[in-house]
Amino acid sequence: MRIEAIDFFYLSMPEVLDIGDGSQDALLVRVAAGGYVGWGECEAAPLPSIAGLICPMSHSACKPVQSSVLGQSLESAEDIVRIGNLVRANSLDLLQADHILSGIDMAMWDLLGKRYSTPVYTLLGYKTIFPKTPYASMLFGDTAQETLEKGRNARAMGYRAAKFGWGPIGLSTAQADADQFMAAREGLGEDGILLIDIGTVWKDDVAAASQRIPALQACRATWLEEPFVSGALDAYRQLAAVAGTVKLAGGEGSHNVYMAQHMIDHAGIGYVQIDAGRIGGISVAKQVADYAQSKGVTYVNHTFTSHLALSASLQPFVGIQSDVICEYPVEPKALALAITKNHLLLDANGQVHAPDAPGLGMEINPTGLQPYLVDVEIRVQGKMLYKTPALG
Amino acid sequence: MRIEAIDFFYLSMPEVLDIGDGSQDALLVRVAAGGYVGWGECEAAPLPSIAGLICPMSHSACKPVQSSVLGQSLESAEDIVRIGNLVRANSLDLLQADHILSGIDMAMWDLLGKRYSTPVYTLLGYKTIFPKTPYASMLFGDTAQETLEKGRNARAMGYRAAKFGWGPIGLSTAQADADQFMAAREGLGEDGILLIDIGTVWKDDVAAASQRIPALQACRATWLEEPFVSGALDAYRQLAAVAGTVKLAGGEGSHNVYMAQHMIDHAGIGYVQIDAGRIGGISVAKQVADYAQSKGVTYVNHTFTSHLALSASLQPFVGIQSDVICEYPVEPKALALAITKNHLLLDANGQVHAPDAPGLGMEINPTGLQPYLVDVEIRVQGKMLYKTPALG
Repeated sequence: MRIEAIDFFYLSMPEVLDIGDGSQDALLVRVAAGGYVGWGECEAAPLPSIAGLICPMSHSACKPVQSSVLGQSLESAEDIVRIGNLVRANSLDLLQADHILSGIDMAMWDLLGKRYSTPVYTLLGYKTIFPKTPYASMLFGDTAQETLEKGRNARAMGYRAAKFGWGPIGLSTAQADADQFMAAREGLGEDGILLIDIGTVWKDDVAAASQRIPALQACRATWLEEPFVSGALDAYRQLAAVAGTVKLAGGEGSHNVYMAQHMIDHAGIGYVQIDAGRIGGISVAKQVADYAQSKGVTYVNHTFTSHLALSASLQPFVGIQSDVICEYPVEPKALALAITKNHLLLDANGQVHAPDAPGLGMEINPTGLQPYLVDVEIRVQGKMLYKTPALG
Repeated sequence: MRIEAIDFFYLSMPEVLDIGDGSQDALLVRVAAGGYVGWGECEAAPLPSIAGLICPMSHSACKPVQSSVLGQSLESAEDIVRIGNLVRANSLDLLQADHILSGIDMAMWDLLGKRYSTPVYTLLGYKTIFPKTPYASMLFGDTAQETLEKGRNARAMGYRAAKFGWGPIGLSTAQADADQFMAAREGLGEDGILLIDIGTVWKDDVAAASQRIPALQACRATWLEEPFVSGALDAYRQLAAVAGTVKLAGGEGSHNVYMAQHMIDHAGIGYVQIDAGRIGGISVAKQVADYAQSKGVTYVNHTFTSHLALSASLQPFVGIQSDVICEYPVEPKALALAITKNHLLLDANGQVHAPDAPGLGMEINPTGLQPYLVDVEIRVQGKMLYKTPALG
């Protein structure tokens, strides 16, 4: 099979709010080869990613991403890795390239799985897979009272674990944050697994973070996520040394295998969180899962959008029994739910399973997506380089 | 002053060849505030960078870059740093953002220098500045014979130092590379400073790199540049341990201060090379220059394009006397030369000076650029979000 087409679809809610909810738009990817179609999703700004797919070449190491993918042979897992390496070399100076590649990589795995009638995780080498314990991923309420109610809701929906993040957290006083942490604990209940996400707002300010550690210990948080930006390895390591029972989690900003390895090797984290829609796809995410396992660090997916992205994000670590929990979006916007006809629902034990079906096992819903499809036209020197393709 | 306008101009040679010459296109940036105009240049893929400047918001940490810059107060160096921090926070999940910010940051420094009638380096705190010894930056010839002639040309043009990179190097046998290295040495002469650039083609393959070390020692190369991709810190460190007299150089791929610090701290390099057009502008480049100095690593600019970019790239380290050499593009395409009316020519001693003039000290040439201006239109839901503005 040769790759015949790559289509990017920009989807958006009618209104996008200035809140930390990444499910308000999406970039869906369709790859076609040999009569098969695969789907993926970039966790990326749609318009710059479309531009990087189709832009004119700047020089030999700054080419549009599609030039390294279209026409390539796709017969095996090795072909997907080879194509990824081509993109990274030929688009070395196109910064957006890793995000663009991510959705294409997922779509290639989906396509290959359909071609061989087998789930992606078997192509990745997993013979046995394990269910994951989902944590409800949600934004902090604007007030501690709202957060308390959100925690109660998560519990009522059957979640044993919940993560609270973004919103007002970290931006006000340490006392205000402490009130939020305790509200989350109270809402979730004494036996729940409580995870806290700071969303990088302290950048690399170890003092600001350290000030919150006593409250995080008091509410028995399992992890403190992204106190700092991904590159601030020294700040992470200094905080890890004083965080005691609270383990650090981070890595979602990694856009290549090296960044994730640096977090594992130099940041003192207990959990590495990888977004397969950013790091270069399932291929690179699997490399990180293997590396984390070898270093005694727990791998966790980062997924805040659709169930297509969720299935893709489970594949790299679904065969690692000791990596128990997985992120599960509980408040996605309607658009994120509309991407697939089927959804990865919790089983009777409140656990999530990767689909036992070819490829990523998700059925795309072109009709349902139609209202969210954003019409884009990009013209260079009068020539149309991109126009939103037909979906369906 | 408040920032009233940011305009991006995509410039290109009529034909862009599949070679490692980054001067074949350019992304020029104009910023206007309080009746002043500043200019900068992103060393970046133009179309995705334009898209990232003006794209619709995806969520609170994935905003178009212009939303963090337009309307901001610009009175001091601190304002530029503050605006950069805003961009990094508000466009955290827009991977292309650092490249986009870079040209805007340069333009803000240029504008501020014009406003206060002083060179940018004084705004950066340098009281005394020093000339730099330029190295002629050129591509390897397709054959060793061609490389020999290029070396002779560099010498004839008065260069004491020359860097050869890209082209066929690293892609064929170790013997072919050795022939190229020796040809470069022969052409440049026994007393020349010879620098070799591999352009990341070995990715993270320490064995392939180690094989070339004896030839690099034999031709007395001062540095071996980018044997590996920027993130491959372990590979760099392993190679540094066996490279002996040949020091490693790298860092041009850094798109934030952390990546450059990781190279300095963990990669065993002797020279850190920073492209102010990629790392986030002059502001971040200056942070790296200071950090490198504190760690005993030599700072060098990475500049392969216009003399506007060259002036911007000199500012961050022009006050550090011990950082002697600077990259100087000797084979730029006509477009790169056409960007400015004035050029930073070598003095009688073959040295380069930062302009003793307000801002970056370069005069943009709108008329000369007209033939290279690329017409771009980006429409989203029928609305024109970007159309190439008038230059001049």
